[in-house]
Amino acid sequence: MKKGLIAAALIVAASASAQVVEDFKPASTNQEGRQYPMVNSQRMVRAQILAPEANSVKLDIGGVKYDMVKDEKGVWTGESAPQDEGFHYYQLNIDGASVPDPGSKYYYGASRWGSGIDVPAADEDFYTVKNVPQGSINEVYYYSTVTEQMRHAYVYLPAEYYSNPSKKFPVLYLQHGMGENETGWSAQGKTGIIMDNLIAAKKAVPFIIVMDNGLNARPAHPAPEAQQPQQGQAGPGGRRRGNFAGAFQEVLLKDIIPMTEKNYRVIADTQHRAMAGLSMGGMQTHSITLANPTTFAYIGMFSGGTFNKQELENAADFKKTNKVLFMSCGGKERMPVVDAANDLKSIGINAYSYISPETAHEWQTWRRSLFEFAQLIFK
Amino acid sequence: MKKGLIAAALIVAASASAQVVEDFKPASTNQEGRQYPMVNSQRMVRAQILAPEANSVKLDIGGVKYDMVKDEKGVWTGESAPQDEGFHYYQLNIDGASVPDPGSKYYYGASRWGSGIDVPAADEDFYTVKNVPQGSINEVYYYSTVTEQMRHAYVYLPAEYYSNPSKKFPVLYLQHGMGENETGWSAQGKTGIIMDNLIAAKKAVPFIIVMDNGLNARPAHPAPEAQQPQQGQAGPGGRRRGNFAGAFQEVLLKDIIPMTEKNYRVIADTQHRAMAGLSMGGMQTHSITLANPTTFAYIGMFSGGTFNKQELENAADFKKTNKVLFMSCGGKERMPVVDAANDLKSIGINAYSYISPETAHEWQTWRRSLFEFAQLIFK
Repeated sequence: MKKGLIAAALIVAASASAQVVEDFKPASTNQEGRQYPMVNSQRMVRAQILAPEANSVKLDIGGVKYDMVKDEKGVWTGESAPQDEGFHYYQLNIDGASVPDPGSKYYYGASRWGSGIDVPAADEDFYTVKNVPQGSINEVYYYSTVTEQMRHAYVYLPAEYYSNPSKKFPVLYLQHGMGENETGWSAQGKTGIIMDNLIAAKKAVPFIIVMDNGLNARPAHPAPEAQQPQQGQAGPGGRRRGNFAGAFQEVLLKDIIPMTEKNYRVIADTQHRAMAGLSMGGMQTHSITLANPTTFAYIGMFSGGTFNKQELENAADFKKTNKVLFMSCGGKERMPVVDAANDLKSIGINAYSYISPETAHEWQTWRRSLFEFAQLIFK
Repeated sequence: MKKGLIAAALIVAASASAQVVEDFKPASTNQEGRQYPMVNSQRMVRAQILAPEANSVKLDIGGVKYDMVKDEKGVWTGESAPQDEGFHYYQLNIDGASVPDPGSKYYYGASRWGSGIDVPAADEDFYTVKNVPQGSINEVYYYSTVTEQMRHAYVYLPAEYYSNPSKKFPVLYLQHGMGENETGWSAQGKTGIIMDNLIAAKKAVPFIIVMDNGLNARPAHPAPEAQQPQQGQAGPGGRRRGNFAGAFQEVLLKDIIPMTEKNYRVIADTQHRAMAGLSMGGMQTHSITLANPTTFAYIGMFSGGTFNKQELENAADFKKTNKVLFMSCGGKERMPVVDAANDLKSIGINAYSYISPETAHEWQTWRRSLFEFAQLIFK
């Protein structure tokens, strides 16, 4: 770098940092004892890494790469623009290599295990661990007759599952989004914490939640109809989502629900069975609940589009079965969930809409959506 | 780099690669769909990363940094020397920055979340997921009266815990090593898989396993004696291990065991209570079981040193209570576990030793140690 360029860079850095409030604190998602990354009250993320021989290091968050600056010890530091409240995937870029930040914990999303950061939120109390009766998130393997392989899932059991050993519980089947997997809802989604807090506050009834993988459900012997399911039924966009929903529907109906109802104390009927999902998982929920109108009484679609009045007005079985149809999105997503709920109410569906303030297509929207949805179901 | 140096590097690379068997396959610990890192039949690890603007990239595994070589597309590739069978922590070094390999899954060890790789082992069948009755690994939070904080643990429940809802079970308290945490035994240790397979083969009786964090158990109000516990009792090296064992002992006896016996269907007596650990966790097991001779009937120390004849020959309560005292290590560790077991047998202790063939102070030693120990206890 030439001397003039260094001077120019310093001027740019100085003018930018003049606006930065120096109250950065380590993120809650950091590895134990790690100071960086940090977040300040403006919700800017500051990353730091030792890379003495690197030519260029960038902080890559929210679709933007921010240049970091090297000090005389070879430590690179840099800040992002203010981020939304809640959880974001991010990474570092070192001389063209995109790598996880060694300071953060790692989460599965964007089709990779990599760095995540939680930006403090005004309402974070609802997903903060408290000294209330604790359920558990159970990691399980089970044999799938559809894929003919062992599959991997997480099952939330509420505290009362252990303390009241004769009681049976309703079940919510809760799905992740594209590029995510069965770990998302419990790790970055904070499902167990949200539920324990809601149940302790008597805002939700205790229920079981099964979180599986909606993307790796390839049948070992695909039937012709299983390859292109629900076309025409799924409404606009049905063909693309059907490809995912069809394979997952097989596994859900033939393996996941039977495994759950066999292994756990479950009230195994329609009125005690719910399905919800975020983004792609919401689209899968849409397709699967429409194609199986008497299987689930409660339905949630978080940033996963909407049901249309047209596809439900003559769906007698669906309307008789459904108790709650919940559609949500982030305020920055501008999905027509309010209009859709009003439309559905006009044909007798008990529809709800929720818009997460000031969030986009990210986990804060979905944490809040679960928080809202969980209070409506099995009541 | 000068031309002569490049030529010299190419010669070195060529002579090394002449001995490399080109049957590399993606590691089982890779992120889904990732080709690299790979392992070949010589147990060499080959890493690869795109870093077009980097000057130097190294594979850092087993305490050695191996130079990687850049191709015309900016992709760096390099191999390690042959590694032992089993699990190893590793990382990449890009222009002086030590970072996780974006191809691997991440594990907690060496005091960081970072890359791990499983090198195939001749005996890997015992820790391979099979279609047998499956238990679960349950993630739980609980309130600690000692630290006055919420703590985090994993609890293995055998399949029969769910299928036989009136049965009570014995419990093993199983601890990790220095630089590791409560995730180690279930993730890289494969505890749940090992136990499900052993129980299905009727080689072990079903029991519960509680895996907690042995390093972060700082009492909120440390008692004077809790700050320097078990001195003199713990034998050689007792002072250093006592500092960890003392704090953890408080949490184990006052919080973890009561929490377990309250929340789960446990046979809550000495004859159905075991403690074991690896490395530092073995030393903690040593100190805690010695200081509480009537609390645990079964004791396992995996690469965690040995009990001495001198400290047990007059320990009447310990000898009356203890049913199995198991000491193991890796063959490359050369710990005197066989001599120690023989010494202890001579004073009436039911001592066992096990040496894991051709492994060092690493997880393959500890997977095998758990496999052996689990077959001896609660019988």
